[in-house]
Amino acid sequence: MSKTIVGVMGPGADATPQEQDAAFELGKLIAGRGWILLTGGRDAGVMDAASRGAKAAGGLTVGILPTADTGEMSSWIDIPIVTGMGQARNNVNVLSSEVVFACGLGPGTAAEIALAVKARKPVIMLCGPSEALNFFSSFGDSRVFTASGPEEAIEIGSRFVPDEVEKKV
Amino acid sequence: MSKTIVGVMGPGADATPQEQDAAFELGKLIAGRGWILLTGGRDAGVMDAASRGAKAAGGLTVGILPTADTGEMSSWIDIPIVTGMGQARNNVNVLSSEVVFACGLGPGTAAEIALAVKARKPVIMLCGPSEALNFFSSFGDSRVFTASGPEEAIEIGSRFVPDEVEKKV
Amino acid sequence: MSKTIVGVMGPGADATPQEQDAAFELGKLIAGRGWILLTGGRDAGVMDAASRGAKAAGGLTVGILPTADTGEMSSWIDIPIVTGMGQARNNVNVLSSEVVFACGLGPGTAAEIALAVKARKPVIMLCGPSEALNFFSSFGDSRVFTASGPEEAIEIGSRFVPDEVEKKV
Amino acid sequence: MSKTIVGVMGPGADATPQEQDAAFELGKLIAGRGWILLTGGRDAGVMDAASRGAKAAGGLTVGILPTADTGEMSSWIDIPIVTGMGQARNNVNVLSSEVVFACGLGPGTAAEIALAVKARKPVIMLCGPSEALNFFSSFGDSRVFTASGPEEAIEIGSRFVPDEVEKKV
Repeated sequence: MSKTIVGVMGPGADATPQEQDAAFELGKLIAGRGWILLTGGRDAGVMDAASRGAKAAGGLTVGILPTADTGEMSSWIDIPIVTGMGQARNNVNVLSSEVVFACGLGPGTAAEIALAVKARKPVIMLCGPSEALNFFSSFGDSRVFTASGPEEAIEIGSRFVPDEVEKKV
Repeated sequence: MSKTIVGVMGPGADATPQEQDAAFELGKLIAGRGWILLTGGRDAGVMDAASRGAKAAGGLTVGILPTADTGEMSSWIDIPIVTGMGQARNNVNVLSSEVVFACGLGPGTAAEIALAVKARKPVIMLCGPSEALNFFSSFGDSRVFTASGPEEAIEIGSRFVPDEVEKKV
Repeated sequence: MSKTIVGVMGPGADATPQEQDAAFELGKLIAGRGWILLTGGRDAGVMDAASRGAKAAGGLTVGILPTADTGEMSSWIDIPIVTGMGQARNNVNVLSSEVVFACGLGPGTAAEIALAVKARKPVIMLCGPSEALNFFSSFGDSRVFTASGPEEAIEIGSRFVPDEVEKKV
Repeated sequence: MSKTIVGVMGPGADATPQEQDAAFELGKLIAGRGWILLTGGRDAGVMDAASRGAKAAGGLTVGILPTADTGEMSSWIDIPIVTGMGQARNNVNVLSSEVVFACGLGPGTAAEIALAVKARKPVIMLCGPSEALNFFSSFGDSRVFTASGPEEAIEIGSRFVPDEVEKKV
């Protein structure tokens, strides 16, 4: 039976230290739950920090690379998926994740949040500006949330993970 | 030499009558300029209305279909590009357009605007909520504009079309 | 109503002079029929020669580029579709073509022929080695043909174009 | 550091019992080597059999699904990558695999072999017709091999896996 995969999306080179810290923590907590971490796979910003966090907690990491090789891959990726399709791979990130965590917000991350809303995936936002929440909430979709920090984000996300739901029954 | 291609993006089945009217008018004006219209190609909402407008003015229309066949295509598409790749085709829409006009705003359109910002394409928004403008402006990119109507939108867009720029010199 | 689009596929930099001559002729004949020519869009080999042929006969040309910009585009492309998805765009070439003409054979072209067979598109091969015909015929699909030259190729292809079929009724 | 990922490609519903047996055995041997198995992920033919084999030997399995959900996924997939991009995902299969094993041959598999040759990945063919070997060998690429059975296939493939190469030094 397939494992629970959740995505952590966020800025690459433009990520702030705060966003990277949150991403690292998110990665650790995801691994601690026994979930697999999926990111955009590059050696930068939130992708790299989340993957490093997951590995620090003994987790498994998947990176969906936009490039056609692994040249710019984070060194914390266990399973590189090499797409060679640039930003079109954002939709693969979203479709492959049961829950999408957005840690900070650049245009690529905004595209992923929008695609997640379109695909009816739950989205939990951290560190983003309040305009972003207002904006994405304007779609009238009840599955976009904000969290004050990584622990709350994971708590919200866990409500949408089937195994977790079962466990509580 | 390749022709000028501009994209009109917007909601499908959820498009309001006002958005469809604006899209129809945009399509007409685009064709009047001698530009080729590119849309998501489906038989719904803004895509369909813009294509109908362009054909009413004798223009040429390209539809980048998410499906693997032409079953749900707008009947106003001259050149269907059949991608079979779902929402991943949004990035093709954006990369193929010299200017992106967003007429209304659903999650698919939001994803396209975000991808356009990422790809450094000029974006002109009509009919969208003010939250959206505030949000996309927050990326600090000076190439996101709002227009009060189709004519102003085309006027702004034309500043980014090389031929038009040359003509004015 | 959408126009008839047919694809011409073949080697890029490795194309022989004979393959390029055949591609040029194919392009001319396709334009002469009033069909739109679709190629992989690059400034090399069969793609470039076929597009040049179609323009010499006053036709319209579409190029489905693997790159994320038009830097390596054939100068004979009217409508560039910029995919940024590398060889994954081969499936778009095939799905968008009513008939696939293969003019010579490299690995990229072989992939396109195979995808065309998979998508049940008619394929007409020119200039390819006889091993190739034997191979692709081994799938037991009756819609893979070889032609002795461009004119015969177009004659075979026209059997699968709805408008042409109607005209003959 | 990323793990070794190898791909097993082959027919789905049309796979013969012999091809499925070979795929099962390949999957077992791949897992036995400590490599991760990548397939097209569907609940049919070679994809399913190879994944079942890898799980029988305690391995880890990745499935690159053509669909936009996991409805038709093999029950032996640990990590589903949901692409929603149909046959365009074949290029992702190939780019993500260090070695491609082809177990039998339908048009989808032929496309993957051709894409692998294009991407300069080593390909090892089993169970395919001799026309196929002759055909793919005609590209003059020395990295296409045939194997008489799963064990020989793995032996050939291991020459291209960096870890294995290092171990022998």
